[in-house]
Amino acid sequence: MARRLVIIGGDAAGMSAAAQARRMTSTGELEIVAFERSTRTSYAACGLPYLVGGFVKAPDSLVARTPQQHRANGIDVRTRHDVVAIDTQASAVTVRDLDAAAESTLRYDELLIGTGASGISPPWPGIDAHGVLQLRTLDDAAQVERLLGAGARRAVVVGAGYIGLEVAEGLLERGLAVTVVERLDAPMGAVLDADMAAGVAQAMRAAGIDLRLHTAVTGFTTVGGRVTAVETASGPFEADLVLIGLGVRPNVELARAAGIGVGAAGGILVDNHQRTDTPHIWAAGDCVESHHRVTGRSVVVALGTHANKQGRVAGTNIAGGEVTFGGVLGTAITRFKELEIARTGLTEQEAAAAGFDAIGVTTEALNRAHYFPDAQPMKIKIVAERGTGRLLGAQIVGGEGAGKRIDVFATALWNNMSVAEVGGMDLSYAPPFSPVWDPVLLAAGKSASSI
Amino acid sequence: MARRLVIIGGDAAGMSAAAQARRMTSTGELEIVAFERSTRTSYAACGLPYLVGGFVKAPDSLVARTPQQHRANGIDVRTRHDVVAIDTQASAVTVRDLDAAAESTLRYDELLIGTGASGISPPWPGIDAHGVLQLRTLDDAAQVERLLGAGARRAVVVGAGYIGLEVAEGLLERGLAVTVVERLDAPMGAVLDADMAAGVAQAMRAAGIDLRLHTAVTGFTTVGGRVTAVETASGPFEADLVLIGLGVRPNVELARAAGIGVGAAGGILVDNHQRTDTPHIWAAGDCVESHHRVTGRSVVVALGTHANKQGRVAGTNIAGGEVTFGGVLGTAITRFKELEIARTGLTEQEAAAAGFDAIGVTTEALNRAHYFPDAQPMKIKIVAERGTGRLLGAQIVGGEGAGKRIDVFATALWNNMSVAEVGGMDLSYAPPFSPVWDPVLLAAGKSASSI
Repeated sequence: MARRLVIIGGDAAGMSAAAQARRMTSTGELEIVAFERSTRTSYAACGLPYLVGGFVKAPDSLVARTPQQHRANGIDVRTRHDVVAIDTQASAVTVRDLDAAAESTLRYDELLIGTGASGISPPWPGIDAHGVLQLRTLDDAAQVERLLGAGARRAVVVGAGYIGLEVAEGLLERGLAVTVVERLDAPMGAVLDADMAAGVAQAMRAAGIDLRLHTAVTGFTTVGGRVTAVETASGPFEADLVLIGLGVRPNVELARAAGIGVGAAGGILVDNHQRTDTPHIWAAGDCVESHHRVTGRSVVVALGTHANKQGRVAGTNIAGGEVTFGGVLGTAITRFKELEIARTGLTEQEAAAAGFDAIGVTTEALNRAHYFPDAQPMKIKIVAERGTGRLLGAQIVGGEGAGKRIDVFATALWNNMSVAEVGGMDLSYAPPFSPVWDPVLLAAGKSASSI
Repeated sequence: MARRLVIIGGDAAGMSAAAQARRMTSTGELEIVAFERSTRTSYAACGLPYLVGGFVKAPDSLVARTPQQHRANGIDVRTRHDVVAIDTQASAVTVRDLDAAAESTLRYDELLIGTGASGISPPWPGIDAHGVLQLRTLDDAAQVERLLGAGARRAVVVGAGYIGLEVAEGLLERGLAVTVVERLDAPMGAVLDADMAAGVAQAMRAAGIDLRLHTAVTGFTTVGGRVTAVETASGPFEADLVLIGLGVRPNVELARAAGIGVGAAGGILVDNHQRTDTPHIWAAGDCVESHHRVTGRSVVVALGTHANKQGRVAGTNIAGGEVTFGGVLGTAITRFKELEIARTGLTEQEAAAAGFDAIGVTTEALNRAHYFPDAQPMKIKIVAERGTGRLLGAQIVGGEGAGKRIDVFATALWNNMSVAEVGGMDLSYAPPFSPVWDPVLLAAGKSASSI
């Protein structure tokens, strides 16, 4: 008789695990049942700001695989089904069929929790008003579209992190007047050092965004249930449309209620095989904590790229393989219009907080040979450990080709390189692609000679 | 009394060494005299094809530092001075002042040889004809400009390597009818595997180049001392202008005559401090052999990026510091119009020749999320060692953002990573920059599962 793998959550982590386990086993060996609360599976949430901005035309193109496609692949996907409890003693889940409003239980041999994360939604008065929303699902994007269609002209984005920045660009692109309200002193203030974030603020303002830093939201003014303004400690900002982009929090209630271990950072605890502390229960994606390779600590990083990798690791191990997840570095990238913004490892601020004796060195360089047309500047900040010269992190803000250079630093970090070693590497050079000293080498060399 | 550093060759390697030694010592401690045969120092030869193509407008912009600037920096640069002999017993060089046609000798405490390389120029009948040239100096570029001004319309480029490709693009850009004649079966045939080179051939032909592969040049037809055609085993190709791009050979005659060791690959032998086998004599740049980190062999790689690094290493050590050159990986990049072409480590062919049991796996991927506008394809070929899964090399051919991804593989190679490890790294992801599995991860993962 087939063993049964039950999956909670039909998005990146869950469906990657399902697809991987399916690749490795026959349906006679392993039955795979995946429960998903919404009507959709495997959609690219990261693409939503670009859908709102009109860069991506078809909402359906964000769906990597539909429930039908997963079913055709031998995975029993049940949408509009909400898992409401896990009974670890009985090895069974309780599932509510949202359309039939009926509950049932299903036994599992292996269980994968891929419950994801939810957008942070502070208890501000008026946050449930019409016109105030997050951008987490295709339905949210459709709602933005309806508000635009109904004549929304003034948007306020709350939070200047990744999503805030991307949504602000999108709404600007759609012709709205956009205000971005941020509690911290700088956009990307939680992920970039202040000196690097300054360039982002400059680009936002140059694009016409009314950027309000150090501004705390206190609530929303509503008229007839519709938002008309965002209230802040510095006064109100009129708005027909408010996008909340304050980051996410792992969905761990189900796991916690079942007695599965949750860590100090707020995510489900897993080992490098994606096993929880409870036999036959695995977890992956935005709901778990991951090993940070630089600090050695357990952290929550909600990113599709980790969800996919962890899902695949879990799926492989569930199907009898043996692979591990190597951990995270805190690598991330985004853009604001032409400006590319990327980071990996630790910022100077983060390094200090983690107890490192760190030094940050910033270098300005060009993305092409100085004599080549359209050479664009970039700033690279390298954070290194004093004494050892160990690379701890890097941040890049600049023009075309700047952002993806972060992957070189990520690879160097993955291998515990020193900045001096990085500065001597054999990286590619040709005038259309870099100066003879690539900005990465230049920045690493400057950092090495400052330690 | 000041020690004296004498430098032979005023280009990348020599002047990097000079500048670095100058940074670290006072003129009272170290006198630096640099002899350069031409009238120029520190010019970017790699930029010449883009000067010919009209992308770069001002020839002078290719000069990173003039002799005057070096002199103002405390380096005694003597242009139009040719070092004709090194007397290692007397620690002196014999120098010919080309303008005064006079010879003199100068003692050195330390000597750096940075004699560079010369373009390969086969003894084909007619190769000295007017209209047949190489593109190695600003004078060569000026000569191309004169030929274009005089009405040249049909160009033949001999050799489809880096320079051949770049010059062909440039001449095409200037409106010439361009034929490229290549002895091998594929463009970039010496540096890419055939399957990857196929995409380059396709792009060249699509751009209107008459690409003649497997075609051996035998000589040139001339009329009144001017070239009118390139003769090949497959017939003649009419030409008003012929560019020879057959690669370069280290200039080692001076060193060899002085009894300084030259290696089997044809370059001056140096250790990782850039010391030759002769006391107080150093060498750097296109004239030396370098340690290849993947094969462990001694190889000749003429690239400005190595010349700069090695010059700096030599300069530091000469000035009393202690640094080493880490070796080369064979990383290189170029473009043909929109197509980006890059490689690092070993091709499948090179790996087999070096005695590795290697497997090559090619992956097609996009440079952005599939739903993002203008997502462009790229091909990545990974070469790995069977059994161990050790990464041995990578090749990339594709659209925007494809080429520079080679640096991630270069960094991975530098650290002796396995393809499985590479496939699990935390690289950056956002829809405008990559699919959720970056092409690098995708290719590495596919390679890992093929071993």
